[in-house]
Amino acid sequence: MKKDRLDKQLEFILAIDKEKNIFRQTYVSDASRMENDAEHAWHMAVMCMILSEYAEHPIDKLKTMTMLLIHDLVEIYAGDTYAYAGVDAEEIHQREYAAAEKLYGMLPEEQGIYFMNLWKEFEEGKSPEAQFARTMDRIQPMMLNAATDGRAWKEHKVRLSQIMKRNEHTAEGSSVLWDYALKHFVMPHVESGEIIDDETHSTGLK
Amino acid sequence: MKKDRLDKQLEFILAIDKEKNIFRQTYVSDASRMENDAEHAWHMAVMCMILSEYAEHPIDKLKTMTMLLIHDLVEIYAGDTYAYAGVDAEEIHQREYAAAEKLYGMLPEEQGIYFMNLWKEFEEGKSPEAQFARTMDRIQPMMLNAATDGRAWKEHKVRLSQIMKRNEHTAEGSSVLWDYALKHFVMPHVESGEIIDDETHSTGLK
Repeated sequence: MKKDRLDKQLEFILAIDKEKNIFRQTYVSDASRMENDAEHAWHMAVMCMILSEYAEHPIDKLKTMTMLLIHDLVEIYAGDTYAYAGVDAEEIHQREYAAAEKLYGMLPEEQGIYFMNLWKEFEEGKSPEAQFARTMDRIQPMMLNAATDGRAWKEHKVRLSQIMKRNEHTAEGSSVLWDYALKHFVMPHVESGEIIDDETHSTGLK
Repeated sequence: MKKDRLDKQLEFILAIDKEKNIFRQTYVSDASRMENDAEHAWHMAVMCMILSEYAEHPIDKLKTMTMLLIHDLVEIYAGDTYAYAGVDAEEIHQREYAAAEKLYGMLPEEQGIYFMNLWKEFEEGKSPEAQFARTMDRIQPMMLNAATDGRAWKEHKVRLSQIMKRNEHTAEGSSVLWDYALKHFVMPHVESGEIIDDETHSTGLK
């Protein structure tokens, strides 16, 4: 049976409600609980509006916000993987690709293709929009980790070298924001020991 | 002391994290808990991208999404009020206006003014963007209430006349979406008794 366009769209919209129950490894700012993917996406979309002036290259804000709002939806079918869990990147990517096809396949064809391409663009991280979106995706949890006395960092025994490796492309989206995050969110927690200091020399700050 | 522009912006961004702990009167789709304002805003922004083709008048999508992402922030300082609680509308508006001034006053001046005006535009509900945003704001909880067997409606003993009154302007944002919502989300729950049927005749469906 051929479904009406609007039926398909609203079924997709209801299906993505599950994003609210996919919890991340970051505490919300009062440390009362972990944040979920929907909240994370909302927070980054607002950040994008406020911080776009610092993008390394001019960005299309609507496109960047849309990317931020939808890029974690694949986790509804593929699950979340903690940034420092050491799982094979290619395996994660394949799982997420299949999830994206399943999810975006629910939409009317041209909308599904649009979202699928936007998700791929984010994953590739090459366009100015994808680079800035990925910078938001790195800086938002850093800000929350810093605001909660590095609790998530401590619980996962995160080392500075891991943070530096994970953020090797963060400055490509915005060098201003990466410098700020390193100085205000990361280094004070290296000083206080909540992040294990295994290579301070490589940050260029000391 | 004069704060740097970026300090102000990031303090605002951290402050609005509180939106994640403002819980609404709507259950998420698996009925495990209530949804919060950040999740609600995220859901509506995605809806706006997918459903903008049904807007009664052409809309600027970036503006509409931005409006949807920020319009509940005032509740961080003003609190939420349930739609059918019977609280004086003028009193709520004044409380929210003061909250908006306090909150948006944290931002660099021109950004604060931009957001304040966008919030006012949403509240007034006159522009095509505000009308469509308000339609999203009505339809999203209806969809969730319908998906959870009308649980929130039952708990609040909601009457059909209240829903019709609250949605007297919903068709102004999108008559297609209001017709769909009435037919698919509301009326089946009037039939099954989860919404108290005190005026079916006025819906034009019977």
